[in-house]
Amino acid sequence: MTVLRADVRRAAVRIAPVARRTPVAVLDGDRVGLPHDVALKLETMQHSGSFKVRGAFNALLAAEVPAAGVIAASGGNHGAAVAYAASALGHRAEVFVPSTAPAAKQERIRRYGAQVTAVGADYAEAYQASVEHADRSGALRVHAYDQPAVVAGQGTVAVELGQQRPDLDVVLVAVGGGGLIAGCAAWYTDSLTLVAVEPEGAPTLQAARLAGEPVDVEVGGIAADALGARRLGTIAADLTGRYVDEAVLVPDDAIRQAQRVLWEELRVLAEPGGATALAALLCGAYAAPAGAAVGAVVCGANLDPASWSVLPGTGV
Amino acid sequence: MTVLRADVRRAAVRIAPVARRTPVAVLDGDRVGLPHDVALKLETMQHSGSFKVRGAFNALLAAEVPAAGVIAASGGNHGAAVAYAASALGHRAEVFVPSTAPAAKQERIRRYGAQVTAVGADYAEAYQASVEHADRSGALRVHAYDQPAVVAGQGTVAVELGQQRPDLDVVLVAVGGGGLIAGCAAWYTDSLTLVAVEPEGAPTLQAARLAGEPVDVEVGGIAADALGARRLGTIAADLTGRYVDEAVLVPDDAIRQAQRVLWEELRVLAEPGGATALAALLCGAYAAPAGAAVGAVVCGANLDPASWSVLPGTGV
Repeated sequence: MTVLRADVRRAAVRIAPVARRTPVAVLDGDRVGLPHDVALKLETMQHSGSFKVRGAFNALLAAEVPAAGVIAASGGNHGAAVAYAASALGHRAEVFVPSTAPAAKQERIRRYGAQVTAVGADYAEAYQASVEHADRSGALRVHAYDQPAVVAGQGTVAVELGQQRPDLDVVLVAVGGGGLIAGCAAWYTDSLTLVAVEPEGAPTLQAARLAGEPVDVEVGGIAADALGARRLGTIAADLTGRYVDEAVLVPDDAIRQAQRVLWEELRVLAEPGGATALAALLCGAYAAPAGAAVGAVVCGANLDPASWSVLPGTGV
Repeated sequence: MTVLRADVRRAAVRIAPVARRTPVAVLDGDRVGLPHDVALKLETMQHSGSFKVRGAFNALLAAEVPAAGVIAASGGNHGAAVAYAASALGHRAEVFVPSTAPAAKQERIRRYGAQVTAVGADYAEAYQASVEHADRSGALRVHAYDQPAVVAGQGTVAVELGQQRPDLDVVLVAVGGGGLIAGCAAWYTDSLTLVAVEPEGAPTLQAARLAGEPVDVEVGGIAADALGARRLGTIAADLTGRYVDEAVLVPDDAIRQAQRVLWEELRVLAEPGGATALAALLCGAYAAPAGAAVGAVVCGANLDPASWSVLPGTGV
């Protein structure tokens, strides 16, 4: 089970009428102490607030969606994305969230038109319940990352970035379950240096590389709501194994600093997971070769702006 | 004293190496109850957080800046813009702010490298003090809106938008002192329908149209910190008189609603003044002709994200 470059190209054609072609903004290196600029692909501005809707749209458009609609498990960006995509395409959607999911997140999924079922103590239990429910109802399951149509959809980020910035030598991508980086790897293959960035608190790719296969890890830290998958997907393990040159870890402090830089320099408010790829450059966890043209994906913005009161230096 | 189309073109060439070419994002009409999409020019992402830096860059690049540097009066976006532009070009900057300007805003101007002088009870007094100081020091004065090089610089928003979206039939622009709309009018002339939008609490253009010349008005409301000039500029009076087809007012509630829509649909956090042009479409103060391609400038984002806790419906 893998994803080919042609699958990503087909996904790009499929979702073009419904996904947003997000802009690329340039962060000036000399404003942030870097020897190079950084081209930022702003998936913060994608429908539903993260890149996840690309995979959701592709999964729904590539399949025959039954009358029972679609089903997903996630209290976070994937749940919102599936709800948004189903609504936009006129399908029913059910999203299973753990009972512990914050009311505000459940409400957002509901606002996008999905039926929300809160069940189980954690994601794993909610996911299991969603699978059993889908078996009964016949609804189409859309996995958060380990499903070929989902990975191919996420890879359309790289298709667009490749068109917008064909000059890039290095692209940094944050990793949770690995859907986004797997899609980017399927598209870029070995045409540039693809760098995986994980929070120290959620090192699924690092753990998989050390073990030689995906293994469960403990997850935590400020980006865990978006990048806190406990285990790398099998598709991601395959594609990152073949095409991801470097995998680095960043501490939570560096992620917060990247959030601050995005706001101060570009007035982009990114969630911690969305700022994680950039963080690797700012804190030096990854240093690009001299002269390289560098890009990074800012992959989500589903946070409460009011939570920014805790960050220093962000006032007007 | 006016600004010609050629002045705006020259400004665009002059500031291209230092100003940011901001992206255009499309707001889907069917998501917000409009019969058409809206192309949004995101000056929220401009250096210093608003379009104002374009005029500042052009004023500094068009003149011989003396060793005494540049001087401006403003506790808001203009002050930050002049400070940013002067720092980027290696000039000294002094910014006079009223003693009542919030400490956070003064601090932002200082962070951009300017010397901040707090003087006077209001903007008029701070402005007068800056003029007297400039007469003594020989520093170059950069007015917030009523100076040809500043207006020409602001018009480069229209140059870019014209390149990015040559199909537009209607463009909406918010008005305070009128620098931005005057620059846009000088560029677009009568090639499309230019619509001026003001908050009900700060109707400088409306008042000027009624009186036949710029007159002082009382200003207030949530956008006053950005659009609260007390009197339309003379350059703006001239150019809007010739090229602005419609001028409408919007209530503060509509501005807040536009801020919410920008966040919910695009994860763009705009200040009230930045959301004012879009507000006219959303509340129906201006209705575009059927079939028209519509654009609006989102002109600034200098707000404290934490202040968003007061807005309902913006959680994740």
